[in-house]
Amino acid sequence: MENIAELLRQYRHGQGLPAEFYTSKEMFKFDMEQVFKKTWIYAGVVSEFKKKGEFRVVQVDNNSIILVRDQQGEIRAFHNSCRHRGAQICTTDKGNVPNLVCPYHQWTYNLNGDLIYAGRMGESFSCKGNGLKPVAIESIAGLLFINLSEDPSYADIEKMKADLAPYVGFYQLDKLKVAKEIDIIEKANWKLVVENNRECYHCNANHPELLKSWPPFGAGFGWPDDPREAAAIAQKIDEAYAVKRPLWDSMGMTHEPLDLTEDRWYRAMMMILENGALSQTMNGELACKKLLPGFSVPDNSDLSMWTHYNSWHHFMCDHVVTTMAIPISEDETLVRTRWLVHEDAREGVDYDLDNLTHVWVKTNDQDRWLAEVNHAGIRSDAYRPGQYSEETEGLVMNFIGWYIKQLQSGI
Amino acid sequence: MENIAELLRQYRHGQGLPAEFYTSKEMFKFDMEQVFKKTWIYAGVVSEFKKKGEFRVVQVDNNSIILVRDQQGEIRAFHNSCRHRGAQICTTDKGNVPNLVCPYHQWTYNLNGDLIYAGRMGESFSCKGNGLKPVAIESIAGLLFINLSEDPSYADIEKMKADLAPYVGFYQLDKLKVAKEIDIIEKANWKLVVENNRECYHCNANHPELLKSWPPFGAGFGWPDDPREAAAIAQKIDEAYAVKRPLWDSMGMTHEPLDLTEDRWYRAMMMILENGALSQTMNGELACKKLLPGFSVPDNSDLSMWTHYNSWHHFMCDHVVTTMAIPISEDETLVRTRWLVHEDAREGVDYDLDNLTHVWVKTNDQDRWLAEVNHAGIRSDAYRPGQYSEETEGLVMNFIGWYIKQLQSGI
Amino acid sequence: MENIAELLRQYRHGQGLPAEFYTSKEMFKFDMEQVFKKTWIYAGVVSEFKKKGEFRVVQVDNNSIILVRDQQGEIRAFHNSCRHRGAQICTTDKGNVPNLVCPYHQWTYNLNGDLIYAGRMGESFSCKGNGLKPVAIESIAGLLFINLSEDPSYADIEKMKADLAPYVGFYQLDKLKVAKEIDIIEKANWKLVVENNRECYHCNANHPELLKSWPPFGAGFGWPDDPREAAAIAQKIDEAYAVKRPLWDSMGMTHEPLDLTEDRWYRAMMMILENGALSQTMNGELACKKLLPGFSVPDNSDLSMWTHYNSWHHFMCDHVVTTMAIPISEDETLVRTRWLVHEDAREGVDYDLDNLTHVWVKTNDQDRWLAEVNHAGIRSDAYRPGQYSEETEGLVMNFIGWYIKQLQSGI
Repeated sequence: MENIAELLRQYRHGQGLPAEFYTSKEMFKFDMEQVFKKTWIYAGVVSEFKKKGEFRVVQVDNNSIILVRDQQGEIRAFHNSCRHRGAQICTTDKGNVPNLVCPYHQWTYNLNGDLIYAGRMGESFSCKGNGLKPVAIESIAGLLFINLSEDPSYADIEKMKADLAPYVGFYQLDKLKVAKEIDIIEKANWKLVVENNRECYHCNANHPELLKSWPPFGAGFGWPDDPREAAAIAQKIDEAYAVKRPLWDSMGMTHEPLDLTEDRWYRAMMMILENGALSQTMNGELACKKLLPGFSVPDNSDLSMWTHYNSWHHFMCDHVVTTMAIPISEDETLVRTRWLVHEDAREGVDYDLDNLTHVWVKTNDQDRWLAEVNHAGIRSDAYRPGQYSEETEGLVMNFIGWYIKQLQSGI
Repeated sequence: MENIAELLRQYRHGQGLPAEFYTSKEMFKFDMEQVFKKTWIYAGVVSEFKKKGEFRVVQVDNNSIILVRDQQGEIRAFHNSCRHRGAQICTTDKGNVPNLVCPYHQWTYNLNGDLIYAGRMGESFSCKGNGLKPVAIESIAGLLFINLSEDPSYADIEKMKADLAPYVGFYQLDKLKVAKEIDIIEKANWKLVVENNRECYHCNANHPELLKSWPPFGAGFGWPDDPREAAAIAQKIDEAYAVKRPLWDSMGMTHEPLDLTEDRWYRAMMMILENGALSQTMNGELACKKLLPGFSVPDNSDLSMWTHYNSWHHFMCDHVVTTMAIPISEDETLVRTRWLVHEDAREGVDYDLDNLTHVWVKTNDQDRWLAEVNHAGIRSDAYRPGQYSEETEGLVMNFIGWYIKQLQSGI
Repeated sequence: MENIAELLRQYRHGQGLPAEFYTSKEMFKFDMEQVFKKTWIYAGVVSEFKKKGEFRVVQVDNNSIILVRDQQGEIRAFHNSCRHRGAQICTTDKGNVPNLVCPYHQWTYNLNGDLIYAGRMGESFSCKGNGLKPVAIESIAGLLFINLSEDPSYADIEKMKADLAPYVGFYQLDKLKVAKEIDIIEKANWKLVVENNRECYHCNANHPELLKSWPPFGAGFGWPDDPREAAAIAQKIDEAYAVKRPLWDSMGMTHEPLDLTEDRWYRAMMMILENGALSQTMNGELACKKLLPGFSVPDNSDLSMWTHYNSWHHFMCDHVVTTMAIPISEDETLVRTRWLVHEDAREGVDYDLDNLTHVWVKTNDQDRWLAEVNHAGIRSDAYRPGQYSEETEGLVMNFIGWYIKQLQSGI
């Protein structure tokens, strides 16, 4: 803690973090306590839980968490540890069960987490008080956030819900299905994974597939140096938005830019895809012929939304790409990406999986490599925090600022 | 040590152990000091050492131990580290050698551990005082126990020998051979491996192969709730034993139940196999046509014997299954099982290896999975020690009680 | 540090080191600070850098170091970490580049390490002061030594250069090429790898291929016990050298024995190959028909040279074998061997790669196995430092003595 306080004193706004923030095991442990076991982390999406009893298991540091749709249709979360000898109850990553039965001695919990059967425990034993330990879970229009704290801040999630639900709600996530889910493990500290996601300074040289449809100026990486050229582009962008805004209003979409990354930890930005693209595909054409429920005609919009510490999402007219990042250790991070389409869309007919996933499979792999190269270089004794670019790395600075505040609150 | 004393204070009889007992590296180190480097641990069986010079290497934490039959026919144990530069002398797991020769500079020790040759060491060097460091080893009718302590408790092993040798001696282990040896590594703390072995509460749902021949009531997992039903079964069991006892007596078998698990750390229990089985096989028939030396006709007995911390054994009329568990780290444990048959039995004629090993290969794998699921769940922040079942987990409680006493003696 | 000081007090001259020197993580860290980040370590050879822009990356503990031939033809060394966000700049092990460009955001450094381009950093940002951090590098007639210290001892390297350059210079390393490079990772502490290289007590029993051409008496492993026999051999050796010396003088070779291993850390010894061999091959014939630039006719000499902590080299008339050892962790060491031939030699015509490399591929693998067996045995609780042989392990003692002094200077 002494070390951490000293490291916090070394941090300077506008610069990267000292190396130990990324490489030390002690700091990783503190990150887990102050961020991943204290704040609301993105852990899943309602589209995964179509039926009662459908469950997923999410691992957060040493904690295995069950997310399950109960008999009343609510999605609940529990610690995956039996109250008898502690064994994991769900031993597969996903499934559908009528009750949660421990495989060791068959202690049985209903989907509300209540213990309803425990054999041979004698008359003095009562099932009451031996239910599964619940984990706080909240839905923001179908995006599921959990909080592992004993005393989660509901004010935080209520404010976030009020801010973001209008944007997300339009896409009716409960009427979508998961077409594909892909995990990658990046050999990099989780903050390097997030920093990479918070700027597009690196995009031009590294993401050819993404740039097929990505608006360079909105993302802040292709702005020209000449002020007159810049002004001309700014005007062109304004004109494009001026055309789209009434259309989006008429469809009921929420589309005003929202950036709470300085004080808080999230942002929503409606973007207009480039080069005539309607979707993030290689040829710009729709990835799925069956549009999402809110759309009657194709639209070249991409709602880019993210939360500081562990998620980013793209909502388009035909599909949604939703990603969560969860630390494994100080130098490994799980990045899980899901591609959602209309629940009635038919694979092979309405969409082709390779075409649907190609751009982000490539982009994620490129970002993985960059984060790993970044992590490897930071291990050097010669590494010193460098200066961020104010023009292109402002959101990185906001993330780092928020993160530092989280840590300071625990010192 | 402060931490460990505090954890010992947290322990409550009748409950599981706090998580750190299973997951912490510091606790693992203390376990090694207080249990595996201080008490008598099961390390092998005489049936492995048929000839002079035959050796096995056993790894206990950082220590590699050579067990070898010397020229006088005694089985001895030595630390596998040359007195010159410390290199390992035996670099294969097993073999047969006339002397123990270090591969590095050919320092040569006889099978008594005396240094008998060291080249180019000059005239002032004396082989005397440079013998291999011996390890205490004792045989209980052929079951070999070693003790890594500098000052092993011979009172402990003499008492255990007096108690157990009568049971084991009947099976004449020196006239048996190892038909098969299989190692598995369980990703679980060694205590979870042992706890799993100390109760059959989990058997009904997890061990279909074992239950083909296993007596449910004796093992304590199938006892009915209705007192009248229970009384009827108890009477049936008594009748079965009443028939067997005089037969066993006439054969010279020791068969009275012995349970010293509360004060000490071992137990012997003669069981009668169920469903007409004569051996632990899938069809209940003999696994080996050539009976063990003590038997002239088949017998449906199974002497179930174990020591608290690292062994369990089944002695039947046609074969013996003998298992040792040795910790590798706080979350890995080696489980080595050997199947012994009469030394004159011929593979493919008198016994089929797959048939001989099937039940315990499956059972061990099922137990491995349960121990791993148990370990994974205990890592959770939500884990709290749960209540044991007095009806079915009494022997687990005895093991834990013994273990706690071992630790307390080192604080 | 308390522990280390205590361990240093336990060390006795003439004996091996206490186990923790080889097995403890804390000691490994101290070794890195006191040896590998403070002294001059062998890191490469000029023969690798034929063209401007040719680079190699060498990993020393957590530090990735770029060695590159700059536009002026000098070989320089830099820390491989961008001054912006710390990413590694060279992400492959070797290559040829006009500039050093960070793959993340394209910050561009020239081959002098100066930052010459950084996009979108705003007007207040200056490239000056943001160059790559240099690493001290010195060439001893083409053998490249780096020093990671902030304040390297140039007196040390200048003295070593004066002592060794006359020997090495004859072989004109800048006119050789790397015919083959092979890495192996030995699961042993780096000091055990070096100790193994410092004595030939182990050679007779372990290196049949090397002994095809290796002089047993010079290497100190085959000396007879009988004083008269020994005297006869000594005379024979003297006679052989008496024949060679004027020849070597006439060729301009430096060949007097140099042994500064007691006070310093290096040694050069001109040896005469045995059994009529001209090169370290299986049949003793030349490995490469094209002789090294300094030779007009074949010569049966082998200049054996090494530095205490991380290199050994053999210079023959037709090829050079040069090896560096770099620790990875307390129980892993990288051993990288290169075979150099005349830059005009043609593979398949003048030399066959398998024939060229066979002896040392085998020898290195045998030494790897010995070092691993040594490390495994030292982990034992029973290990105690043993006595070295004064006759055959004097150079090991010198290495250990030098190492202890390095550590003492940091306490």
